[in-house]
Amino acid sequence: MRSRFQSAFIARLATVGAGGRPHIVPVCFALDEQTLYFAVDSKPKRTENLQRLRNIAANPVVSILVDHYEDDWSRLWWVRLDGDARVVTDRAEAGMAVKLLAARYAQYRANPPAGPVVAVAIAAMTGWSAS
Amino acid sequence: MRSRFQSAFIARLATVGAGGRPHIVPVCFALDEQTLYFAVDSKPKRTENLQRLRNIAANPVVSILVDHYEDDWSRLWWVRLDGDARVVTDRAEAGMAVKLLAARYAQYRANPPAGPVVAVAIAAMTGWSAS
Repeated sequence: MRSRFQSAFIARLATVGAGGRPHIVPVCFALDEQTLYFAVDSKPKRTENLQRLRNIAANPVVSILVDHYEDDWSRLWWVRLDGDARVVTDRAEAGMAVKLLAARYAQYRANPPAGPVVAVAIAAMTGWSAS
Repeated sequence: MRSRFQSAFIARLATVGAGGRPHIVPVCFALDEQTLYFAVDSKPKRTENLQRLRNIAANPVVSILVDHYEDDWSRLWWVRLDGDARVVTDRAEAGMAVKLLAARYAQYRANPPAGPVVAVAIAAMTGWSAS
C-alpha cells in the first residue's frame, strides 16, 4: 500500500470544517516514515488555502486518498491514509519537509513552496484493490 | 467548471463520520441538472460501502472533487461540488440514475451497479485553475 501511495504525484486531502462540513482539495505530498508532508503553495492568503489550515486548526483529523483509475476496472485500486494534521512550526522540520517535497517534484525545486508546511501523523493506512 | 467536472471519469467523495472524522473514497458519477448521482457497487455489505452510507445518513453534507494533474503545473485545475446527499428510495429516480451512469460507463452497461444509488443535491460549485 505504501509503495502504491508513493507512486502517485497527487493525493486528495479531506478536512472537516465548522459545523461538520467536509472540505476536499488536491495536494502534492512526500512521505517520511510515519508522516506525510504537504506545503501550502505561494499564496497562503487565498481563501482555499486558509480554509484547509483553519479546518486543521479546529479539527486535526484528516483523510488523504490516492487512487488509480483506468478503463479496465479489474485494475482499480486506492490507498487512504487517516491521521492527525498540524502546521509545522519547527524550522528544521519544515526545511526537511521542503527538501523531501523538492526531491519528488521538479516544480518545487524551481519554486520552493512559500506557505506553511503541514505534517500528518499517519494513524492508519487502508487499501482496496479490485483484483 | 461543469464541463471540466463532466470530463472526468472519477471523482473523490468526502463525507464526515461520527466524531467529525472525514472519510474519502473515489466514486464514478453522472450529473443531471443540479444533481450528482453515484451508485454503490455490487458489494454493499463491504465495510467501506457501509461507511459512506452511514456517514451520509448521519450527516448529509458532502464534498466531491475532480482534479487534473500533469507535470506542467500551469495547467492544473480542480472543480469541487458541495451539497447534500441522500440515498435514493424512489425506484423511478434510481432507475433513471443508473441509466445516466450506464450512458457514461461501459462497465456499468455490462454490470449494472447492484447497490443503493446516492443523489447529491449540488449547492455550490467551486473551481480553481492555475492559469
